[in-house]
Amino acid sequence: MPRDLRELSLNTATLGYQWPLARVIAACAAAGLGGIAPWRRDFSTMPPAEAQARIADAGLTVTGLCRGGYLVHANATERSAVLDDNRHAIDEAQALGAPALCFVVGSLPRGGRDLAAARAQVIEILSQLSEHAAGSGVRLGVEPLHPMYAADRSCISTLASALDVCDAVGGDIGVVIDTYHVWWDPNLAAGLQRAGAARLLGWHMADWRVPTRDLLMDRAMIGEGVIDLIAIERMVRAAGWTGLTEVEIFSDEWNRRDPAETLAALVRNFRALA
Amino acid sequence: MPRDLRELSLNTATLGYQWPLARVIAACAAAGLGGIAPWRRDFSTMPPAEAQARIADAGLTVTGLCRGGYLVHANATERSAVLDDNRHAIDEAQALGAPALCFVVGSLPRGGRDLAAARAQVIEILSQLSEHAAGSGVRLGVEPLHPMYAADRSCISTLASALDVCDAVGGDIGVVIDTYHVWWDPNLAAGLQRAGAARLLGWHMADWRVPTRDLLMDRAMIGEGVIDLIAIERMVRAAGWTGLTEVEIFSDEWNRRDPAETLAALVRNFRALA
Repeated sequence: MPRDLRELSLNTATLGYQWPLARVIAACAAAGLGGIAPWRRDFSTMPPAEAQARIADAGLTVTGLCRGGYLVHANATERSAVLDDNRHAIDEAQALGAPALCFVVGSLPRGGRDLAAARAQVIEILSQLSEHAAGSGVRLGVEPLHPMYAADRSCISTLASALDVCDAVGGDIGVVIDTYHVWWDPNLAAGLQRAGAARLLGWHMADWRVPTRDLLMDRAMIGEGVIDLIAIERMVRAAGWTGLTEVEIFSDEWNRRDPAETLAALVRNFRALA
Repeated sequence: MPRDLRELSLNTATLGYQWPLARVIAACAAAGLGGIAPWRRDFSTMPPAEAQARIADAGLTVTGLCRGGYLVHANATERSAVLDDNRHAIDEAQALGAPALCFVVGSLPRGGRDLAAARAQVIEILSQLSEHAAGSGVRLGVEPLHPMYAADRSCISTLASALDVCDAVGGDIGVVIDTYHVWWDPNLAAGLQRAGAARLLGWHMADWRVPTRDLLMDRAMIGEGVIDLIAIERMVRAAGWTGLTEVEIFSDEWNRRDPAETLAALVRNFRALA
């Protein structure tokens, strides 16, 4: 039986920001999707409070906001800017009605080589930000990124490492899982069990293209790569995730296409996933 | 104090195979290096037994042979070919006088998505090959590859996973460590302690370029990337490694240069590492 499209949420990066948010919302609703996950850059065409209302009117759920992050800093001025920007992101997530703000935590500062120091900064900043988020209804979601981003995007490269950060920060913080980042990890099932429903704040699908021609912008559409998406989904559900499945395809190839075509391919492939 | 060049071994891939092996051997000796690690393709210009003699005459140590591998197979015919090829590689390593044959174990067969099944095949084939290697003086070295190669090159993506393979295979098998593959791993120090001197069969240095423009052929020359090579070297030595440091730079950029220039850069940067 084909899947219920109401279980699918579109991460707006998948359409390459070719359409203003209003048009993306309308297209998701028309296609029968259940949810949407905007990026902060989408607010350039529609402020978050208005987006919240439009998304609700369209019968869609907000599954998250992308993204907070780049928490590693070289000095006090940068630290202050990081805190300001991420507090603002939390406020935007609250206005949007997003249950979670997804974090790409950053990594080595220019000229730096100390991953452990970067991780310590991430824990310190997230601790500060969790105070700002308290009572907002927005939870902070640490997304472990694929180790190929360890130098420049995320010093948190595995689910276990992300959960260690959660333990260190304490409170209401959790993790966001994306198949693209974690599929290779032999400890994935154990990590998901460790996370449990209490710490799973987001569940993203994307697929791995062979060959991968670019480290950032060459994901495959779901079902067209080599990741066993169904097996990982089963682990995520077994760990307690009951929310929607958000699809986020960073791809120059897909981003060059008509967004209507990309959305149609997503719908077709999601329904066929089995 | 600059490092002793006798502690440095050149992996011949670093020079892009522009020179026949005889010339590479002579250049390493002239530069004052302590060792060399050929690839099987180098035997196209000089058979392994002759290479063994020439390398010894030049006062160099063989630190390893690259490589065995691609052990995952789709059927009995492929399995048989895999065994034949890798038994031949072990024989070549023995003729060369290499202490270890470095393995890139392979991953998903065409159309496959099951990493666990691939890992099981790797264990089964390595068990067969360890019988062939017994008494040869050649040890089998499993190299965990960076997770960005999990789809097409290696289903073994972490040192812990490689050590699990060693435990399953038993006997004299061990691991080969390359900074390029493992630098991001927060469990690296623990894995090296677990490996210990008994299971460390190779120690490779390469550096990570930011940005990385190609998944395979864009390594940085040592000292010119973001990896804390010294910190990892310290962990490797603490775990009991007493051998040479082999440098292996896969890089289209370096491979286009005059090999003499690349070797000079390697010597300069190795001496400056501190």
